[in-house]
Amino acid sequence: MSISGKLYFDGAWHQGMGGTYQAVNPATAQLLEPVMTKATKAQVELAVAAAQRDSLAFAKTSAAQRANFLRECATQIEALGDELVDRISAETGYPKARGEGERARTCGQLRMFATSLDNGEFVDARIDTAQPDRKPVPKPDIRFMQQAIGPVAVFSVSNFPLAYSTAGGDSAAALAAGCPVLAKGHNSHPGTGELVASAIIKAIEICKMPKGIFAYLMGDDAEVGATLVKAPAVKAVGFTGSIAGGTALMKMANARPEPIPVFAEMGSINPVVLLPEALKTQAATIAKGFVASLTLGTGQFCVNPGLVIAVDGPELQEFITAVQAELGAVGAGVMLNERICHSYSNGVNHFKQVPGVDVLAQGQAVSDAAGFRAQAYLLGTSGQNFVAQPDIHEEVFGPASMLVKCKSIDEIPQALSVLGGQLTGTVHGTESELGQHVEIIDALTAKAGRLVINGFPTGVEVCPSMVHGGPFPASSDMRFTAVGTAAIQRFQRPVCYQNFPDALLPDALKNSNPLKLNRLVNGAPSDAALT
Amino acid sequence: MSISGKLYFDGAWHQGMGGTYQAVNPATAQLLEPVMTKATKAQVELAVAAAQRDSLAFAKTSAAQRANFLRECATQIEALGDELVDRISAETGYPKARGEGERARTCGQLRMFATSLDNGEFVDARIDTAQPDRKPVPKPDIRFMQQAIGPVAVFSVSNFPLAYSTAGGDSAAALAAGCPVLAKGHNSHPGTGELVASAIIKAIEICKMPKGIFAYLMGDDAEVGATLVKAPAVKAVGFTGSIAGGTALMKMANARPEPIPVFAEMGSINPVVLLPEALKTQAATIAKGFVASLTLGTGQFCVNPGLVIAVDGPELQEFITAVQAELGAVGAGVMLNERICHSYSNGVNHFKQVPGVDVLAQGQAVSDAAGFRAQAYLLGTSGQNFVAQPDIHEEVFGPASMLVKCKSIDEIPQALSVLGGQLTGTVHGTESELGQHVEIIDALTAKAGRLVINGFPTGVEVCPSMVHGGPFPASSDMRFTAVGTAAIQRFQRPVCYQNFPDALLPDALKNSNPLKLNRLVNGAPSDAALT
Repeated sequence: MSISGKLYFDGAWHQGMGGTYQAVNPATAQLLEPVMTKATKAQVELAVAAAQRDSLAFAKTSAAQRANFLRECATQIEALGDELVDRISAETGYPKARGEGERARTCGQLRMFATSLDNGEFVDARIDTAQPDRKPVPKPDIRFMQQAIGPVAVFSVSNFPLAYSTAGGDSAAALAAGCPVLAKGHNSHPGTGELVASAIIKAIEICKMPKGIFAYLMGDDAEVGATLVKAPAVKAVGFTGSIAGGTALMKMANARPEPIPVFAEMGSINPVVLLPEALKTQAATIAKGFVASLTLGTGQFCVNPGLVIAVDGPELQEFITAVQAELGAVGAGVMLNERICHSYSNGVNHFKQVPGVDVLAQGQAVSDAAGFRAQAYLLGTSGQNFVAQPDIHEEVFGPASMLVKCKSIDEIPQALSVLGGQLTGTVHGTESELGQHVEIIDALTAKAGRLVINGFPTGVEVCPSMVHGGPFPASSDMRFTAVGTAAIQRFQRPVCYQNFPDALLPDALKNSNPLKLNRLVNGAPSDAALT
Repeated sequence: MSISGKLYFDGAWHQGMGGTYQAVNPATAQLLEPVMTKATKAQVELAVAAAQRDSLAFAKTSAAQRANFLRECATQIEALGDELVDRISAETGYPKARGEGERARTCGQLRMFATSLDNGEFVDARIDTAQPDRKPVPKPDIRFMQQAIGPVAVFSVSNFPLAYSTAGGDSAAALAAGCPVLAKGHNSHPGTGELVASAIIKAIEICKMPKGIFAYLMGDDAEVGATLVKAPAVKAVGFTGSIAGGTALMKMANARPEPIPVFAEMGSINPVVLLPEALKTQAATIAKGFVASLTLGTGQFCVNPGLVIAVDGPELQEFITAVQAELGAVGAGVMLNERICHSYSNGVNHFKQVPGVDVLAQGQAVSDAAGFRAQAYLLGTSGQNFVAQPDIHEEVFGPASMLVKCKSIDEIPQALSVLGGQLTGTVHGTESELGQHVEIIDALTAKAGRLVINGFPTGVEVCPSMVHGGPFPASSDMRFTAVGTAAIQRFQRPVCYQNFPDALLPDALKNSNPLKLNRLVNGAPSDAALT
């Protein structure tokens, strides 16, 4: 198909009436065709109205119907073929393999939610049967299940044009729950977004889903974003991006007459602790893994290892020397857009000027004048200086990391204690020294949603056990994850049914257990029918 | 024991340094002995510091240890004997049977969470095993479980001196999760709170729990409440009360550098729809049940049926006539305190003055000049008038209800559509007419957390299937319930462990499955050990 630059809502493509713009190839700074159009406030409101209109019908579809629909979305995204991955490369500067990998991840994620719908795990069905003779009062029949909350606004993110955008994790989880999705495309990759939207739309047609359950809207945050967050019919927001962006949306959502949650994944510097015994035997190997993790995707990951903490000494020097060699071989990578590229170089320059911060290692300098490129850095400072300077606890989005050199192992929990919430915390150590330093694992656990031993934080596995989230400001609500099957919980609410005639109960709660669910019956798991 | 009027924190009783006051017997308006003391900001901060200090140790206790502790709390509350129920009656005006019932409910709730801890259901343990040979990248071993979030501030509520106060639902859920509880007593029943606190403290001593995990604080909202909500170490707030009170706390919590959730149960008028066939055969029975529900506890329940919606006609007139007779026999009940009593009479007077609102039935007038008493009311208005007057959609806390007389059954969903979120929605109907009016059940489902057929909303069963919550403003976050085993989810967050050596994993996630949990292993439930 050819990219039209149009918006999609209420079952049709529409020319955006809010102005035009063009995407930019960040590798060349050249404009990309075609001209894209932006939505007006009125167009966003039409999209919201269509979503609201079809919300109940969508919520009432069976889990099997939605599973089929999610699988069809994946099939249709794959059917876009090279056109999709080529457009991703043009809009993001990512190599083709990255686009292919992200497509596999995105489609895998849609299918994972389909499997979760098949299992029925997401329903959390519970039944407490009546005891009419109980004293002093009879016990009623009560049955509990999770249900869709209604339309969800999803903000696409710059660095994952597929996996956290139009058909990414938030959209897949919301659609799985039975919530209409109002997707705001990202101005860095609007063509990619439009291609993915066309795939979802085909799936809606093939699966005969209500046409209002998906919209693809492009435009500015103030116009499109704010209108979505303020719309009374919108019941939750999914966002991945900066702390400033996420907290601005949270404020807006909390100021509504009916406040709604913004599930925001925001800043994280993902501390990596290197314990002495691990450095003694593995310094070069860890350095190699660290540089690969740091520079993957030009460091543009929310789980990028932006902080390394270790005890100073000859083993740490060996690690630094190895990083110097590894990083010296890394060319200046393309960044996603001009703004991110400027923020990165400003951030690195700011860090360099903080007293007590040195450059320990660097990647190759930017030699290609065209496009937006970044030189990788490992900066260094003392444990004492790190604790004293809140400025250098901030995230610099891109391939830069700060090595904190502690005087002793006791300084490590202290350095961790000054951090805000994190998506991940990593420790490298032998099993014996890990066991001896449980206080370090405890300090990381208090800060992070995912703990990694002897690995690196990049590479977020999409599986039922994943937690992608953490204490504020890593995410807006640490009770939820943005990746994995539990991500659907953001877009559901429990409802219970008291003394309902069997025929009026949802299938998940009927006596005969027609969906063959594993249910909590009078407090114990059971997949049996009730008599 | 004798009531001392002291506060409890960091393992000891302290004279409050923030002033003194006395509780009032609402049946007589007489002051109750002894003089109670209020906490200062500095005392609250000491309590928070002790809770924070012991937070990790408490989070690391085993589920079995916490189950034992919760059971001991119940035992110690029961051991308070008549002193407790007598003090409840003195401080609230509730008859002794109500105090005994609420004690049974409170102790039952503590034991329910103990059972839930025994089952391990609350952990939501998940394991995805490694696939080192997976292409293109190896799959790591990832394991997921729910963990305690840290100290929780719990605000006691006026109308449930036991079940939603010091050792009530919020405290039980937080302690079950492994979170220290900072309980703010209610000025209406501070002596009851102190007695319950003494029981928890005995349980802490007997079970050798860390002493900072529980505090009992009394004082004013501005001093004690605000200090708790703003304290950086506090990670969540449990509140039950008015919309104004709940939203004020939400604003305060959202304005923190690290926003935290306020789980607030607020206003609800709990619509009850009476369908024509049910009225035709059951008008008198429904009227009897309705009046009993309306006047239970002098109407001081968040699930009080404050709104009845039905089609006008002779059957509805029969219902009204029956309500008149039933209500005419109900004496003016004691209300919890002067403020609530005044708010109630102001609210009823305001409703009476709204154009198009009539008094349809009333209870006996207040004849006893002493204390704070309330006359029960059934007011009435047309469907059209109800939709047009947002003023009469507000909750009047007490034994008053509004009957909305619709011209036809089609007006019912319209009347429901103007309501805010509700804790409950009820329909009376024959099975056949319920099946014919699914749109009414759908309209209620969109608004409420609990749906009741042919019953009344009062009487919140404490069981795994209960949902006590609903769309805003019934509760601040409709994703959670305040009653039932799922209430623990408010005070937990998921953490995942990647590539952890077995010895360093929490017991819930170890290969040998030492806790015999039912875990989600590679997407399928299993209680087997891993090899």
